[in-house]
Amino acid sequence: MSNELKMPIYQYEDWFISERDFSIENSYKNETIFALANGYIGLRGSFEEGYSGADYKGFNGTYINGFYEIHDIVYPEGGYGFANKGQTMLNVADGKLIELYIEDEKFDLSEGKIHKYERILDMKNGLLNRKIKWESPNGKLVMINISRIVSFKRKHIAAIKFEVTPLNFDGNIKFVSGINGNVLNTIETEDVRVGSSLKEKVLNTIRKNASKEKGFIVQKTNKSNLSYVCAIDNFVVADEKIKVSNMLEDDSIFILFNLDVKKGENYILYKYISYYTSKDGEAFVELAEEDTKKAKEDGFERILKEQKEYLDSFWRDADIIIKGDNALQQGIRFNEFHLLQSVGRDGNTNIAAKGLTGQGYEGHYFWDSDIYILPFFLYTKPEIAKALIIYRYNLLDAARKRAKELGHKGALYPWRTIDGPECSAFFPAGTAQYHINADIVYALKRYVEATNDLNFLYEYGCEIIFETARFWEDLGSYINLKGNKFCINTVTGPDEYTALVDNNAYTNYMAKMNLEYAYDIANKMKKEVPEGYQRIASKLNLKDHEINTWKKAADNMYLPYSHEMDIIPQDDSFLYKERIIADEIPKDQFPLLLHWHYLNIYRFQLCKQPDVLLLMFLQREKFTSDQLKNNYDYYEPITTHDSSLSPAIFSILANEIGYTDKAYAYFMMTARMDLDDYNENVKDGIHSASMAGSWSAVVNGFGGMRVYTDELHFTPRLPIKWDLLSFNIKYKGRKINVEITHDQTIFNLIEGEPIEIYYFEKKLFLNKGINKIKRS
Amino acid sequence: MSNELKMPIYQYEDWFISERDFSIENSYKNETIFALANGYIGLRGSFEEGYSGADYKGFNGTYINGFYEIHDIVYPEGGYGFANKGQTMLNVADGKLIELYIEDEKFDLSEGKIHKYERILDMKNGLLNRKIKWESPNGKLVMINISRIVSFKRKHIAAIKFEVTPLNFDGNIKFVSGINGNVLNTIETEDVRVGSSLKEKVLNTIRKNASKEKGFIVQKTNKSNLSYVCAIDNFVVADEKIKVSNMLEDDSIFILFNLDVKKGENYILYKYISYYTSKDGEAFVELAEEDTKKAKEDGFERILKEQKEYLDSFWRDADIIIKGDNALQQGIRFNEFHLLQSVGRDGNTNIAAKGLTGQGYEGHYFWDSDIYILPFFLYTKPEIAKALIIYRYNLLDAARKRAKELGHKGALYPWRTIDGPECSAFFPAGTAQYHINADIVYALKRYVEATNDLNFLYEYGCEIIFETARFWEDLGSYINLKGNKFCINTVTGPDEYTALVDNNAYTNYMAKMNLEYAYDIANKMKKEVPEGYQRIASKLNLKDHEINTWKKAADNMYLPYSHEMDIIPQDDSFLYKERIIADEIPKDQFPLLLHWHYLNIYRFQLCKQPDVLLLMFLQREKFTSDQLKNNYDYYEPITTHDSSLSPAIFSILANEIGYTDKAYAYFMMTARMDLDDYNENVKDGIHSASMAGSWSAVVNGFGGMRVYTDELHFTPRLPIKWDLLSFNIKYKGRKINVEITHDQTIFNLIEGEPIEIYYFEKKLFLNKGINKIKRS
Repeated sequence: MSNELKMPIYQYEDWFISERDFSIENSYKNETIFALANGYIGLRGSFEEGYSGADYKGFNGTYINGFYEIHDIVYPEGGYGFANKGQTMLNVADGKLIELYIEDEKFDLSEGKIHKYERILDMKNGLLNRKIKWESPNGKLVMINISRIVSFKRKHIAAIKFEVTPLNFDGNIKFVSGINGNVLNTIETEDVRVGSSLKEKVLNTIRKNASKEKGFIVQKTNKSNLSYVCAIDNFVVADEKIKVSNMLEDDSIFILFNLDVKKGENYILYKYISYYTSKDGEAFVELAEEDTKKAKEDGFERILKEQKEYLDSFWRDADIIIKGDNALQQGIRFNEFHLLQSVGRDGNTNIAAKGLTGQGYEGHYFWDSDIYILPFFLYTKPEIAKALIIYRYNLLDAARKRAKELGHKGALYPWRTIDGPECSAFFPAGTAQYHINADIVYALKRYVEATNDLNFLYEYGCEIIFETARFWEDLGSYINLKGNKFCINTVTGPDEYTALVDNNAYTNYMAKMNLEYAYDIANKMKKEVPEGYQRIASKLNLKDHEINTWKKAADNMYLPYSHEMDIIPQDDSFLYKERIIADEIPKDQFPLLLHWHYLNIYRFQLCKQPDVLLLMFLQREKFTSDQLKNNYDYYEPITTHDSSLSPAIFSILANEIGYTDKAYAYFMMTARMDLDDYNENVKDGIHSASMAGSWSAVVNGFGGMRVYTDELHFTPRLPIKWDLLSFNIKYKGRKINVEITHDQTIFNLIEGEPIEIYYFEKKLFLNKGINKIKRS
Repeated sequence: MSNELKMPIYQYEDWFISERDFSIENSYKNETIFALANGYIGLRGSFEEGYSGADYKGFNGTYINGFYEIHDIVYPEGGYGFANKGQTMLNVADGKLIELYIEDEKFDLSEGKIHKYERILDMKNGLLNRKIKWESPNGKLVMINISRIVSFKRKHIAAIKFEVTPLNFDGNIKFVSGINGNVLNTIETEDVRVGSSLKEKVLNTIRKNASKEKGFIVQKTNKSNLSYVCAIDNFVVADEKIKVSNMLEDDSIFILFNLDVKKGENYILYKYISYYTSKDGEAFVELAEEDTKKAKEDGFERILKEQKEYLDSFWRDADIIIKGDNALQQGIRFNEFHLLQSVGRDGNTNIAAKGLTGQGYEGHYFWDSDIYILPFFLYTKPEIAKALIIYRYNLLDAARKRAKELGHKGALYPWRTIDGPECSAFFPAGTAQYHINADIVYALKRYVEATNDLNFLYEYGCEIIFETARFWEDLGSYINLKGNKFCINTVTGPDEYTALVDNNAYTNYMAKMNLEYAYDIANKMKKEVPEGYQRIASKLNLKDHEINTWKKAADNMYLPYSHEMDIIPQDDSFLYKERIIADEIPKDQFPLLLHWHYLNIYRFQLCKQPDVLLLMFLQREKFTSDQLKNNYDYYEPITTHDSSLSPAIFSILANEIGYTDKAYAYFMMTARMDLDDYNENVKDGIHSASMAGSWSAVVNGFGGMRVYTDELHFTPRLPIKWDLLSFNIKYKGRKINVEITHDQTIFNLIEGEPIEIYYFEKKLFLNKGINKIKRS
């Protein structure tokens, strides 16, 4: 562990993230922390009114999940089959723009005097609230109270309540509620992990309108042929007469509300914002207008109430209670809240590396979704997990096309994409990461096990499973010198600090699982749903002979093992490289990928993130505790954790092995990675996979949950510092609350039939309601 | 062998390449075949007068060795230490431009009628001659005779004699002798092996002048800060009065000669063209003007005479006589002639992959120079070999900088460059080819052995040797699981169809040679030139301890060997890959790199070119004949020869093994690769390394020459079809002519002291003059 614990930036509060003093230098970071989203619309936490000071360093981003521009990927020295079209999630028009003029003085935190400032992200209500007591340069004192919601229940709606109270004057104020479509994208830096490659303006305004209290802007991309609309509707509450007027600029519209105000009275602008895209059908503009109209009719308070209802339900399913550590309590809730905000749930979108809070990694979806993030939803909101798998199903044609392009059978999923094509421009850590195929099947398999959703499996899932099995069988070879075992050569495993290797253990084990599962499901379908099987076999031109080749490849899969050292070598060459202890590398060299040439990284036993250890976690039942410990001891010292995916897995495994201090320290890194800005890059967006990893670190680590085939295991390990850990699990139609204290564990079977579980590897029958088990 | 023999394009003539019928569709190809150059100036074989027909597909290129523009290398997904500045050899102003107007009708082969046409490249005289009997659209009949020289003796001079004879009219003609600086570069295609990445105009005219019979243009690049001048001077021979006038355009100048002519008389324009660059000093424009003036004073015939003298001397040293196969006789002379034309000999330039005949590979210099091309010069014109090594010495600072940038000690030479920086934009087949370091030292070692030039070794060469040894010692590691042997991991060997592997045999053997040589030379210098050693040791901060680490690394070098199969595995992983027989791949898939993803190439036992076999050739004395045969039999079937470097080595080794048919077939591929346009890309330029390979295939293959340390071996194997093979070798101050017939070999020691050689592995003492040895 080369990282040290960080000082807290935000006060420890169970349900809130708060900023009590305004300092513009924190704005970039806070735009991420205070971002609101609903899996579709994402608004960075920038101010409604903007900030005109030259000291502003930030990025006022607005995102629609799955809305992107394409661009040519141009290589200085290309090659056959290199990805040639990139996709980039776009920054779209800023619809939350509300300016306030007080007697022609513009409210702007870079001017005047701030007497009081408070910004709170309320994770129970899904609300961002900002209260400012502000004195204008001319001495006008106002109380401003702004609430912002991005509605979980209304996919296309965001709403703002902007309240002003004159404190020392009667006079005139003006609300300017607008849409600013004159936007650019985050500029790419030297760091490949940040920003997009689109430097120019890519959105063209093709329609706009402003009329009375409402208006919209429609913009279209240059190349991806996608359009979207941002529509707004407004309502101002005031006893006084209000003069409404409109203003249109090239790429912007404004609705102006002019009113005379009295000292001590409240004046409120309600703003309803809707985003739709051309993917929603031809009438997407009308749909947006209808949505804002309906939202306005229903009103802000109703939307707020719905929001609370939605979140109440969410927290009932997903909340984790940690008593004894406020920092972690806050961290884990913040992570869960942001995961919920980030995840696409319409089957056509997924969860980007930085959610909907930034353009890092171009808004692409990676294996992070399937391996790191999906379990959180699977065991708390399985309907979202299903949507993530449907997303993968919808990519199947693109994956078939890619496999064919590379001369392979079956389907090869893209390492990174928004809606299908491979967008990775560095194949050694892109296309070579074939394991993505098995990662998706692993997630699907877990989904089917946890939900018994056989309909989905037989109707859709099996197609993914068969096409990927087909791919693996085609990719590997039976190698004579390896005892005629089935070998998969020239791949890159999860650890990107080693590339283009033979028989990466993770890849081979996961491919074996994929092939076996395909064989099993094919046979199961033949028996249980022969017509369904016939349909799919005919669609895929699948013959029994081919299915048997899957079994043969799985049975003969080469699974690297060093008997000498009693560990799993990461790949055929790994143990033959010089070993470098990560802690001995000067701190200013991290992350290594920004300071060392890949060749000098690949050359060593040095890992970015767990590879063998991740495999052992995912296929835990395949390995003994001794093997786990041996491998942990071998790989931990050479792991740099240069990937934010790393610490969570180390925490979980350290817990199981009994390295309780390490388990706790790694968990701290992951639980508060973004809140404490461990990597000093939270400004660019959250780390969604790490956030999900922190959930796993709690549930799989401290909660000790393992899911083997049809077996639910718990081996809790409560840190001494904690008084209580409580979490919920949905599994096979049950909902179970697990409450762990030092002397007992209470399993509360809240929903569903009684079920057998394993507690410290002993069978235990859970009856409906409370089941208390003393620790022996 | 997947290639088939091709039909001849050019008539088999010993000393000529001729085109007897004009067909514009051959023009692109012929521009390469008929290119003239002198290692500094290169003129493609385009016509002086141009060709205005729409059916022209070609590229009228003019090159100056080492004159380049730089450009940013932009990666869609970059990484630390990736090469970031590219260099591209530029197409410069066309100075050979001569238009002819006959009563205002422009002479142009796309118009009128061609009664007679002949173009001959005369390799004995270094002259390109074109004779055309042409009838203008209006019926004016002329005989035109154009001779072109790029002077070997005058580095900066080209000259043209343009003779016109009116055959059926008296009247007016006009010569327009110009410089056209309005030029672009060959456009890069999908094929990375062709063209440059500069799409825009990069040369700006900063000075120009035309006055009376002479003029010049000076152009400057946008970024590399290099300028060059093209200066011309002209002289028209005619009895009649000549009116001279000048014309200037933006990037061009023209000298017009207007004269009245009489039927049956000859009218000649002599044009003298000079190119200099700002690298030649501030007065480079004046130097060019002086050179053209001097050339004009001396006259065309004198330049022609000099040219013949130069070439007489060259052929005396380098000529190969093959009796019994006209095609090969012509091919080998063509290759030698083009090598002489292509090679930079000023210590600041080298020999580009396509010589000075095209912009493929951006005019970069590769290891081809050191390993494939240098031997030809070393044993025929060693002073040119020395210049090539001085070029490498002049790059040492850049190589030190590169090593440092990558965190290594010593020096790392660029995989491809013009004047120093690494310009390879694909590191798996660029920076990873660390063997370039040892290739250079190998060439240097061979040079020292063949010339006894110890002064050069002690003054300059040792610095290259020490800095590269230093690099190797830093790069490798002692690996426990490999018996604590010194291993060099994550490299790419010569065979680019396998990348980023551990312990590439070629690399390790060559690095061992480099380290041993460094140790030996250091110790030799300590004894023989202690002061010289002190100077260099102090400059490099070289301590005895470090020199001993070189010896240790060399002694412990891991040298892969499969005892099971009695072959050298190409690298640690090679034998564990699926073997693919090249002949079984459909022909339309070649070259594989244009049809298969690198991952699918790297995954198999499949070679672009010899790797282990090249090693066995270069370090022949290290391996037994059985080993050679085993390895040949193992690697030949899996080699695609997708690199033009491939067939020559196979020919040489097949010869030694006794695969005489294969030896001959491979030699045919290499000897006439460009003349017969095997790869259908001669239009883009010659294949300089393959041309040199054909020399090796004759001398090392059929001539059976091997040079071990201080031992010169000959084991000739004359093909049945041939009656005689004769070649010359310069070695340790001797010049030996070797003449092989079926019943005897005659060694004629033409220059130097008597010398001991090995003939069929038996010692033989050569006396001055003729030494006849019967074949037993």
